[in-house]
Amino acid sequence: MSTFGTLFKVTTYGESHCASVGVIVDGCPPGLQLSPKDIQIQLSRRRPGQSNLTTPRDEKDLVHIQSGVEHGVALGTPIALMVKNEDQRPHDYSETDLYPRPSHADYTYLQKYGVKASSGGGRSSARETIGRVAAGAIAEHYLKIAHGIEIVAFVSSVGKIHLPAGVAPPSLTPLDTDEDDDEAQDALSPEFRKLLSTITREEVDKHPTRCPHAETAERMTKRIIRAKSANDSIGGTVTCVIRNIPAGLGEPVFDKFEAKLAHAMLSIPATKAFEIGSGFRGTEVPGSKHNDKFVAKDNGGLGTVTNWSGGVQGGITNGEDVYFRIGFKSPATISQPQETAQYDGTAGSLAARGRHDPCVVPRAVPIVEAMASLVIMDALLIQNARRSTASLLPPITTLPPTMVLPQSKAEKKP
Amino acid sequence: MSTFGTLFKVTTYGESHCASVGVIVDGCPPGLQLSPKDIQIQLSRRRPGQSNLTTPRDEKDLVHIQSGVEHGVALGTPIALMVKNEDQRPHDYSETDLYPRPSHADYTYLQKYGVKASSGGGRSSARETIGRVAAGAIAEHYLKIAHGIEIVAFVSSVGKIHLPAGVAPPSLTPLDTDEDDDEAQDALSPEFRKLLSTITREEVDKHPTRCPHAETAERMTKRIIRAKSANDSIGGTVTCVIRNIPAGLGEPVFDKFEAKLAHAMLSIPATKAFEIGSGFRGTEVPGSKHNDKFVAKDNGGLGTVTNWSGGVQGGITNGEDVYFRIGFKSPATISQPQETAQYDGTAGSLAARGRHDPCVVPRAVPIVEAMASLVIMDALLIQNARRSTASLLPPITTLPPTMVLPQSKAEKKP
Amino acid sequence: MSTFGTLFKVTTYGESHCASVGVIVDGCPPGLQLSPKDIQIQLSRRRPGQSNLTTPRDEKDLVHIQSGVEHGVALGTPIALMVKNEDQRPHDYSETDLYPRPSHADYTYLQKYGVKASSGGGRSSARETIGRVAAGAIAEHYLKIAHGIEIVAFVSSVGKIHLPAGVAPPSLTPLDTDEDDDEAQDALSPEFRKLLSTITREEVDKHPTRCPHAETAERMTKRIIRAKSANDSIGGTVTCVIRNIPAGLGEPVFDKFEAKLAHAMLSIPATKAFEIGSGFRGTEVPGSKHNDKFVAKDNGGLGTVTNWSGGVQGGITNGEDVYFRIGFKSPATISQPQETAQYDGTAGSLAARGRHDPCVVPRAVPIVEAMASLVIMDALLIQNARRSTASLLPPITTLPPTMVLPQSKAEKKP
Amino acid sequence: MSTFGTLFKVTTYGESHCASVGVIVDGCPPGLQLSPKDIQIQLSRRRPGQSNLTTPRDEKDLVHIQSGVEHGVALGTPIALMVKNEDQRPHDYSETDLYPRPSHADYTYLQKYGVKASSGGGRSSARETIGRVAAGAIAEHYLKIAHGIEIVAFVSSVGKIHLPAGVAPPSLTPLDTDEDDDEAQDALSPEFRKLLSTITREEVDKHPTRCPHAETAERMTKRIIRAKSANDSIGGTVTCVIRNIPAGLGEPVFDKFEAKLAHAMLSIPATKAFEIGSGFRGTEVPGSKHNDKFVAKDNGGLGTVTNWSGGVQGGITNGEDVYFRIGFKSPATISQPQETAQYDGTAGSLAARGRHDPCVVPRAVPIVEAMASLVIMDALLIQNARRSTASLLPPITTLPPTMVLPQSKAEKKP
Repeated sequence: MSTFGTLFKVTTYGESHCASVGVIVDGCPPGLQLSPKDIQIQLSRRRPGQSNLTTPRDEKDLVHIQSGVEHGVALGTPIALMVKNEDQRPHDYSETDLYPRPSHADYTYLQKYGVKASSGGGRSSARETIGRVAAGAIAEHYLKIAHGIEIVAFVSSVGKIHLPAGVAPPSLTPLDTDEDDDEAQDALSPEFRKLLSTITREEVDKHPTRCPHAETAERMTKRIIRAKSANDSIGGTVTCVIRNIPAGLGEPVFDKFEAKLAHAMLSIPATKAFEIGSGFRGTEVPGSKHNDKFVAKDNGGLGTVTNWSGGVQGGITNGEDVYFRIGFKSPATISQPQETAQYDGTAGSLAARGRHDPCVVPRAVPIVEAMASLVIMDALLIQNARRSTASLLPPITTLPPTMVLPQSKAEKKP
Repeated sequence: MSTFGTLFKVTTYGESHCASVGVIVDGCPPGLQLSPKDIQIQLSRRRPGQSNLTTPRDEKDLVHIQSGVEHGVALGTPIALMVKNEDQRPHDYSETDLYPRPSHADYTYLQKYGVKASSGGGRSSARETIGRVAAGAIAEHYLKIAHGIEIVAFVSSVGKIHLPAGVAPPSLTPLDTDEDDDEAQDALSPEFRKLLSTITREEVDKHPTRCPHAETAERMTKRIIRAKSANDSIGGTVTCVIRNIPAGLGEPVFDKFEAKLAHAMLSIPATKAFEIGSGFRGTEVPGSKHNDKFVAKDNGGLGTVTNWSGGVQGGITNGEDVYFRIGFKSPATISQPQETAQYDGTAGSLAARGRHDPCVVPRAVPIVEAMASLVIMDALLIQNARRSTASLLPPITTLPPTMVLPQSKAEKKP
Repeated sequence: MSTFGTLFKVTTYGESHCASVGVIVDGCPPGLQLSPKDIQIQLSRRRPGQSNLTTPRDEKDLVHIQSGVEHGVALGTPIALMVKNEDQRPHDYSETDLYPRPSHADYTYLQKYGVKASSGGGRSSARETIGRVAAGAIAEHYLKIAHGIEIVAFVSSVGKIHLPAGVAPPSLTPLDTDEDDDEAQDALSPEFRKLLSTITREEVDKHPTRCPHAETAERMTKRIIRAKSANDSIGGTVTCVIRNIPAGLGEPVFDKFEAKLAHAMLSIPATKAFEIGSGFRGTEVPGSKHNDKFVAKDNGGLGTVTNWSGGVQGGITNGEDVYFRIGFKSPATISQPQETAQYDGTAGSLAARGRHDPCVVPRAVPIVEAMASLVIMDALLIQNARRSTASLLPPITTLPPTMVLPQSKAEKKP
Repeated sequence: MSTFGTLFKVTTYGESHCASVGVIVDGCPPGLQLSPKDIQIQLSRRRPGQSNLTTPRDEKDLVHIQSGVEHGVALGTPIALMVKNEDQRPHDYSETDLYPRPSHADYTYLQKYGVKASSGGGRSSARETIGRVAAGAIAEHYLKIAHGIEIVAFVSSVGKIHLPAGVAPPSLTPLDTDEDDDEAQDALSPEFRKLLSTITREEVDKHPTRCPHAETAERMTKRIIRAKSANDSIGGTVTCVIRNIPAGLGEPVFDKFEAKLAHAMLSIPATKAFEIGSGFRGTEVPGSKHNDKFVAKDNGGLGTVTNWSGGVQGGITNGEDVYFRIGFKSPATISQPQETAQYDGTAGSLAARGRHDPCVVPRAVPIVEAMASLVIMDALLIQNARRSTASLLPPITTLPPTMVLPQSKAEKKP
C-alpha cells in the first residue's frame, strides 16, 4: 500500500497527471518548529532540471502545508503536504499507447489493477517520490535537532565508473581473486571510513553528479553524456551514511534495522540491490577479520575498532556509523526505438516520447536520504516507547550485573 | 516486532534456552490439507548436524501442531506450531559473560532492552528461525497446490568461490572493467536462465554445501573445512528462484514485491546484502540492453525476451521467474581467541565456548525459501482481495481498450 | 492515529483553521466508476446550515479529487480528496483561551501533545469528519453497485424523546420492570423490523431532525429549539441498518464485525455508547427467547426467524440485517456561562464564543453511515481475500458433509 | 485476525479440542519481574467450576511460560504462554451436528471459512479467552507496578436485576420520563462515584455473582438458578473502573481511547453493548448539566467536578477515573429443545449436549479487566513514544503560554 511506518506513519498519493501529489505525515513529534523551507530544501534537491545531466523540465514543486502546523509549530496531528502538478491533463492517446514500455510498469500495473492511468505506470512515476522526500525532510529535521543525526547520501558509481579503491565502499573495491587469499579485509579502508565520517551535503552538491570525488565525478559526467547522446541510459549506485544514530534501534526479529532499511530502499523506483556495511564483500572475509572487536570509548561506552557491520548487529544499531549502498538500474525509458510487442502480442517497434533522465542516481540522493530518515524516525519512536516505559520499573536486583544495563547508561550514546 | 505479514500473519517466539520455540500462523486458507510432515520436511532441512560441514548438535526439532488443524484440514483459524528446546536451562555464568561477543548481538540487545538473556543474543539465536521455516512450509504447501509455484534456493558462493561464469548470477559474473565497454549484458547467460528454470530441491540437496554445481561444491567444501580447521568462519551467498508466480503481486508504492522480499531476507540472521534480477550488475548495463522486451507467449499473454528485471517491474511481478541473491556474512562466533573489550571497557581476550557452524549458507537455504513463501503468500492474498472485489464491478466501457485488462485475461498467467 | 482500515485504508488530516481538510483513500477497487458528485452528496448531508436546528454557518465543503481517478474511473491507487477551509486563519487569542472548555478536548489535547491548536481541540473539530464522510461515500458507492448493500441511519431519540414503542429499537422500548417477568422479547417488534427493512435516506431526510416518525420528529424539533433558546444543548441516539450484507464478514477473534463497528462508531466525536442488535436489552431476555432460530429461505440458504443478534453471530455476519444504535452526548459547547477553572487552576466563568449546534444527531447521520461503510468495505476485502484464495484448493473429501460448505453455496447470499 | 495491539501486540490461538490454547505477548517492557503466578491468578478467576452458578467442568488451566522470561525477568522479547486442553479429541459426530446451533457461531463460521471445527464454533469457544486473560495479566502487572493503575470490574446487572439506584451506573438509574424534565443529571450519584473509587477485586470476589452489593447479589443468584432450573440462560452487564490512569492516552482520531475500549470489549464473546461514562444516559442530560467543569487539584493540576465523561474527552484520557459498562447477551447454549433448521434447511428440534453456564457475567469479569489492560498498555506505550521523543526538543517560545504545557507538568498525573 501507500503507507510506510508504524508510529511515524507516512501515506503518499498522486500520479503524473492528476491535480497534485502529496503526503500525510502522522506522528510528528509535537512542538517541532517547522517551516515550509525545511521541507522545500530537499524537494528542490530532488527536482529535475538542475543540470544538463537531468531532464530539462522545470517543475517548481512548491510545497503547501495543509494542516498540522500552526504558527510554525507542529501540533502532533497529521501534517498534510501538497505539491501541485503543472500538467494536470491525462495525455492524448496515440500509437505508443498500444505498447507496454519494456521494463517499465505499464504491463504490470495493468495486470495488477485491470485498468491503468493514461500516463502508463501510474504510481510508478518519479513524481510519486515527492511525497516521500517531503515526509523525510520533516523526519530528518527532528533527528538533526534532537539527536544531531546526520544523513548524507552520495553517488558511488555510474555504470562501471566507481569511486577509486580506498574511498570506495567494500563491495566496489577490487580484490585479489585468489580464493585462498583472505586479505579481503583491506577493503574496509581507513580512507573510506574517513569519507563516511566527514562527508557533507554541501560537498556532495558541489558536483552535478553528486559524486564527492572530483576526478571520478568528471568521468561520470562523460559517461552520462555518452548515454544521453546515444538515446540510451545508464545506472549507478548511491551510498549513504547515518552518523550519530543512537544504539538500540531496530526491532528483532522481522523488523531488524537493516531489514527496514532494505525495505525502504527497494521501494524507491528503479532499485535492484541493497547492501549494508560489508555487504556482498562481507561474504568473502573470514569471521576472524570481519568481526568488529570492541574497544572502550572516551564517553565510557563501547565502540568497535572496525565497522564491517555497518552499525548494526543482530538487527539493532550499535551506535557506530550506519552505511549502506543501493543499486539503481539503468532507466527503462530511452529514446531509441525498441523491438517489442504490443499488449495484444503484435510485434513492433516502440520509440518513446518526451525527454527523460539518462541517469537517475544524482536525483536519487535526496530520496535515499528521505527513506533513511523515515526508517530511523519510526525505529526511534518505537524504541523510545520501550525504554521510557521500562524506565518506570524498579531496578533489577536478581540478575548478574553483566545481564543488566545500568540505568545511568541507558540513554548514553556510545 | 516478531510479526510478519498483513493477511498471512506470522508471529514467532523463543530463545535458545527457553521451553520451546514456535510460531502462530494466522490467515491460512481454510480447507488446506495439512499434516505435520508437510512442515517437518523443511525443518529437517534447516536442522544442523547433517554433515561435517555444520555443527554436530542433533536437535531433533519435531514440530507439534497445537491448533487450527482438525482431521488434517486447516480450519482457517490460527495454526500454532511448537518445537521443544532440548536444552531448556539458562546457562551458568562464567568469565565469558563479561564480554559482548564481537559482531554478535550481545551488546546491542543489552543496549536495546537494558537486560539480556543468559544465552547472550536472545532472539538472535539461530533457533528463532525454526518458527519462520515452519510457517513458510505451510505457505509453500498452499502455493504449490493452488498455483504450482516452485521456490528453490541454492548456494551460489562460499567466500570467494563462486558458481562459474555462465551459471553464476549476473553480479557474480566477472566483467571486462573497461568503463566504456557496454557488453556487460552477456552476464545474463542462457545457461544461468536454464539453471533457474530447472533446478530442484533434490538436486540442491545432493551435495552437503547445497551448491548445484558439483565441481564448485567440492571447492566450497574444502573452503569450509579450511575455515573450520582454523577455528574461523566464512560467509557466502544464496540464490533463490520462484517459478510459476502469478503476475500482479506486490503493492505500490512502499510494499513493492522486491521491497518486501528484501525486508524478509535482511531479517534472516547474518544477512548483509540483497539483490533482485540483475542487481548491482544491472547498474552497469545500459538501458537499451537491460530493458526486457516483450514477446507474445503461447498462452496469449506477454512474456519478456530477457529477464534482467528478475520478474518484477514497477514493484509488481510480471509472471517471469523471480530470482534474487542474498549475502550472508561470515559467522561471528569463532573458536579462536579475539582481542576485544568487556562490557565495562576492560580490554581482554575472549575465546568462545562450544561448537559452531563455520559457514551457515547451506543451512540458510530452507530459511530463504521460507521467507520467500511468506512474502508471496501475503502478496497473493492482498492481490486476490483486490481482484475478486473488483470482479463484481460492471465492465469499463469509457476507456480505450489498451487501458483495460479484458476480464477473461485477468486471471491468466502470462 | 489518523488511519483506519487494513485493506481499505483511510487516512484523514486537518484542523478547523488550517488550509484544508481531507483524506487519502487507499485500496479502492480499481475500475470503480466515480465522480465528485458521488462523494459530494454525503458531504452535503453532513454540512451544517441546512435548517434552523443546526449552526447557520455555510461552509460549502466542495470536494476536490486530487488523484487516483482518471476519466471517471478509479485506478486502484490512492484517491486523495481535499475540501478547503473557508476560515484559514488561526484565531486571535482572547481571555477565553485561558480556559479549557469543559468536556471539550482543549485540556486533553494539551496533556497529550504538550501544545495545542489555536482553535482548541485541534483534530476534535467536527470538520475532521469531512474526510471520513468523503471516504465512506466511496466505499458505499462500491458496496451499492457490487452487492446492493444499503446503509441507512436515522435519529432514534433526542434527549428523552424516543421513537415510540413498536418502532423503537429494543433498548428504547419500555419494559415491565418485574424482574421475574421474561416477556422482554416483545421488545423486538415486527413494526421495528419492518422499519429496518424499508427505511430509505429519502424518508430520513424529509424532516430536518432526520427522525422518520413524523410526530416524534416534531417533538424532537421542539426539544432542540428549547435547548437552543436556553443557550444549552441536548444529545440523542442514531440507529443504523445495513441491508443485503453478505454472510461471513468479520474476523475472529479481536476483529469481530461488531467490535470493528463499535470502534468505528466510538471514534465519532461526542459518542458515548454503542449497541448492536438487542444490545443492553438483550441482557434481560432469556436465551430461549433471545436465540434466533434458523429457517430455510427461498434461495436455499438459511435465515433466522427473529434477529436479536443484529445480523452477527460469533463476530461474523449471518446475512440478516445488521442494526445498531449509537449514543451522542449533549454537545459540550454551549453559550451560557460556565463556572470552571483556567489552565492554571484559577476559578472563573467561561462564556463560549460563536454559534454552535444545540444538537448534533441530525448531522451525525451521514457520519454514522460513512463509518459503517468503511467497516464493511474493509471486512469484505479481507473475506474476499480468504475465499478467493481458498477457492483454488481441491474439494475436501475427508470431512463429514456438515463440516464443509459446498463450493456452490459459498458465494450465495442467504 | 487474532492479533490485538500495535506496540503491546497480543496474538492468541486455540480451539476447544486442540492440543493447547495460548498467546504470544510481544512488546512487554523489558525488566518486568514476572512469575507464572502473576498470570495464574487471573486465569483462575476466569476458570469455570468455582460455584454452582457456573459450569461444573474443572479445567485446571495451568499456564506454562514458553519464552521471553528468564530468571523471573521479562527480556522484552515475545512471551509465549500455553495452557493445555484437557480434552484434545475432536468430538464424535452425531445428529446434533446436522444443526447449526441458534445464535451460536456454527453457521457463520461455516459461511466464513467454508469448513468448521468438530466443536462447532471453533474460535468462538470460551476457551479462546484464556489467551487474552493471560496477556492482560502481564499488562496489568506492569500497569500496577509502574503507575499504580487499578482495574476493577464487577457485575452490575443480571437480567432485570440491577444495582439499586444510587450505586447503579447512570444508564441503569431509573429516570422521570417527563421529556421536559432535565433533572437526569441526578443519575451520576456521589454514591456511585464512591463505589468506583473504592471497589476492590477482593470485595468483588466475595460473592459468586461478583456483584459488590450483597442484597442485589442474592437476588442475582436466585435469578441465575431460576434460569438453570429452566434449562435456560440469562444475560447481564459488567461495569469496570480504571483508576490512576495517566492523562493523555488515546489517539485521535480513529483510535480514541473509548473507541479502542469499545473494540476490545465487543470482541469478547456474547457482548452486545458498550457505554462509557454517562453512556446512553448522557444523551438525555443537557450540556449545561453534563459538562464536567474543571477545578484545581491539590497537586497543581486540573480535575473535574463531575465525571459524566467517564475519564475521556476528545478521545483522550483526562486523568479522572475511566468507567464503562458492557452488555452480555443471554448465552446461546441452552439445554431445552429448540425448534430450528438443519444446515440443509430441514426443520427439526435441537437439544444441546453437555452442561453450560446459565449466565456468563461472573466469569466475564476478569476477561473485561484483561481487555482493558491491553488497551491501556498499548495506548501508554504509544503516548510514551510521543512524549519521550518530543521531550528532546527545545522549549517552544513562540506561542502564548496557554498553548503550551510546561515541561515540568508534562509527566504529572492530574
